[in-house]
Amino acid sequence: MSETTVNMEKLVNLCQRRGFVFQSSEIYGGLSGCWDYGPLGIELKRNIKQAWWKAMVQDRDDMVGIESSILMAPQVWVASGHLVNFTDPLVECKGCNQRFRADLIAGTKCPNCGGALSEPRNFNTMFKTFIGPVENDASVVYLRPETAQGMFVNFDNVLQTTRKKLPFGIAQQGKSFRNEITTGNFIFRSREFEQMEMEYFVKPGTDEKWFEYWLNERMNWYVNHGIKREHLSILEHEKAKLAHYAKRVCDITFLYPMGWEEIEGLASRTDYDLKQHSNASGKVLDYYDDETKEHYTPYVIEPAVGVDRCFLAFLADAYHEEPDKDETRVVLKFHPSLAPVKVAILPLSKKENLAAYAKDVHQQIRGQYATQYDDTQSIGRRYRRQDEIGTPYCVTVDFQSLEDHRVTVRDRDSMNQIRIPVAELQKTLTAKLAGEAFLKLPAGGEVVTAKGKEA
Amino acid sequence: MSETTVNMEKLVNLCQRRGFVFQSSEIYGGLSGCWDYGPLGIELKRNIKQAWWKAMVQDRDDMVGIESSILMAPQVWVASGHLVNFTDPLVECKGCNQRFRADLIAGTKCPNCGGALSEPRNFNTMFKTFIGPVENDASVVYLRPETAQGMFVNFDNVLQTTRKKLPFGIAQQGKSFRNEITTGNFIFRSREFEQMEMEYFVKPGTDEKWFEYWLNERMNWYVNHGIKREHLSILEHEKAKLAHYAKRVCDITFLYPMGWEEIEGLASRTDYDLKQHSNASGKVLDYYDDETKEHYTPYVIEPAVGVDRCFLAFLADAYHEEPDKDETRVVLKFHPSLAPVKVAILPLSKKENLAAYAKDVHQQIRGQYATQYDDTQSIGRRYRRQDEIGTPYCVTVDFQSLEDHRVTVRDRDSMNQIRIPVAELQKTLTAKLAGEAFLKLPAGGEVVTAKGKEA
Repeated sequence: MSETTVNMEKLVNLCQRRGFVFQSSEIYGGLSGCWDYGPLGIELKRNIKQAWWKAMVQDRDDMVGIESSILMAPQVWVASGHLVNFTDPLVECKGCNQRFRADLIAGTKCPNCGGALSEPRNFNTMFKTFIGPVENDASVVYLRPETAQGMFVNFDNVLQTTRKKLPFGIAQQGKSFRNEITTGNFIFRSREFEQMEMEYFVKPGTDEKWFEYWLNERMNWYVNHGIKREHLSILEHEKAKLAHYAKRVCDITFLYPMGWEEIEGLASRTDYDLKQHSNASGKVLDYYDDETKEHYTPYVIEPAVGVDRCFLAFLADAYHEEPDKDETRVVLKFHPSLAPVKVAILPLSKKENLAAYAKDVHQQIRGQYATQYDDTQSIGRRYRRQDEIGTPYCVTVDFQSLEDHRVTVRDRDSMNQIRIPVAELQKTLTAKLAGEAFLKLPAGGEVVTAKGKEA
Repeated sequence: MSETTVNMEKLVNLCQRRGFVFQSSEIYGGLSGCWDYGPLGIELKRNIKQAWWKAMVQDRDDMVGIESSILMAPQVWVASGHLVNFTDPLVECKGCNQRFRADLIAGTKCPNCGGALSEPRNFNTMFKTFIGPVENDASVVYLRPETAQGMFVNFDNVLQTTRKKLPFGIAQQGKSFRNEITTGNFIFRSREFEQMEMEYFVKPGTDEKWFEYWLNERMNWYVNHGIKREHLSILEHEKAKLAHYAKRVCDITFLYPMGWEEIEGLASRTDYDLKQHSNASGKVLDYYDDETKEHYTPYVIEPAVGVDRCFLAFLADAYHEEPDKDETRVVLKFHPSLAPVKVAILPLSKKENLAAYAKDVHQQIRGQYATQYDDTQSIGRRYRRQDEIGTPYCVTVDFQSLEDHRVTVRDRDSMNQIRIPVAELQKTLTAKLAGEAFLKLPAGGEVVTAKGKEA
């Protein structure tokens, strides 16, 4: 089993210092279990979500996206079982009054003061609010605790408007809310979080094959975007402990700084959800198979990802510390598709003619990728700053560039440098970001340093 | 003044029929004031949000994005004034018990039954919920009614981590919630909605200039993405009626099916918000100007857009009905950057060899753009279906294509057709989507029909 390479404190510190993640409402002391994404964090989060949407929806013929609302009719949560079953066992210490989830503490004493604990009571972790001006039972609605139900209740709308044939899937991304008794591990377990969920509807009897397919697809997605294979594991849930409607459940777990924890869950849910909603609403939610001329309720395979958990995993696996002369180089080795900034333009000095030229170079490539222009402090310091936020390529514009119209491109991971004509810059960066070997040169290019360290 | 070209009923019908927008929780009779975006709607919405993010954040040096949480510390809403002032005057009919916003009804009788109305009371339209397991005053938190405050409370976090100089802005997109007494006009006024807001921080004294700048930028953004200039107007709020801290407020209004209504608001808010939060939190929220060696609190210009209102406006202006032989052609003339599907691949028949070739053509261009592959019903019907969802280009693969490796490309708006080599297809589509004249031909291309109607 692999070891984690980074502790949580370092990640939290980097996130705060460089503007990836802030505490929600920090100036007021913070709101427990809620987080804000800063300028770099939101770009990383957007890139993760886009990578999932592209792989799961846009590049496939058998998938469509939707976006259902966070507030839904309360009948949804009756039919889904959440109103009765979405509870955690809550205990309170009779001494210090702190509250705990009974299933997460060992022994029967308060982990805080050692006092006696109350009997556990079932606490429903759906947040409730009131719609309209009167606060009573009739006006209660809930903030969704998962996005999945929005796809089940829209099954027939999607089927009618897209004319999809089985197997096909519905995907969505969006916020969900759970009133967790205890939160923690940074953004890992929070009260407000984002999900990327997908319901893949299949003909009953083909569900086992499709479960295997999606387990494999989802494992590949992580590895293709930079997660180390040895930091992923599959945890098969015991058949005997599954909910009555579930045929199979696997967690994809990741080696987080605090240990192996779930990053994604895959569940084979049979026809349970569609049937529950069909029974509760009185609407037919089935499929007409025009090959076999049968009506039936599809089975469903559900791969459900936590975006914030994904964010933390990509960050943890990207984090590297490397000795470099007397210093330690901190570098986030993000996959290029996820890096918040793809290219930094670094003029060697702020002198006017050089700045004008560097800005012109910047202008030629911006709009293609997320870029940063940085002209403060030494070039070495600027490389370090870009390393620390995971920028794959730095383009240095020096006085020689004014004469030969060539610039130096530096690779984040190897720190190798090549010098290439400005006219080749955009094409070259596009190729490198798509995976071309860094030392492969465009016409007129030359290697400056290979395996070298910059001065 | 222009006339609207489409009535709401036609838009709602198209949205439902083709999968742009569904009622939330529709199978349970719907949840008032909440809407779901279907497969085409979510792609249109994503494209609108991405167009704004690119123009407002990624293509600018003076802007950064964030994403703050929906649940925020309650002190935020005390300091911002929302807890006291974010109210509507609520009246209830003593006869039929229906409720109304007093400021939206004429006369003093119930618009429903003519009965007498109660005295108005101030109803706070923030949704409230309880964080943690105890429901009491100490655990109340609110669903944000706007995203703006998330940027003010993060002002110093952003300043410290990005080292931005004035003027600079913070932008975000995300859901907000308002417990409206009355909702209506489809997705125009709903209880759950999405915003794209930006706070642009400037040196006091330069605020008037920057207000003009942003008013101009924002008007251009709509026009550049397909809104007719004559369907936009600027409504200047009377100075005497502004809130005490506001120097200037303008609405950008759009000619919706129900008349002129606000699509975006621009407000010059002075240093009010930062000072309120600084006073309430005890944290310094100011700026050190290293040119003048002064500390001061920046002024702010706020352009605030409703995403759903944008969606409705882009849809309304895209909607066209054109006589075509005995039929009416319904076509959504979306700007290519916003169209949910960019290119449709239409094999002339389902025959195996043709299908294989068409799928190969599809494979060559997918991944570059959102595409659809459609092989059902006549080619004329398929063109109509793509017109109705606003697909800019259809690529028809016929039996001749198997021989000459050329395909027919058809332009949505003019219905002109050109025939070009498959080898030129991707480059040609990319150029057309970026604005190249449709009849400009690649090497080996020819015009099939110009100003013609398809058979």
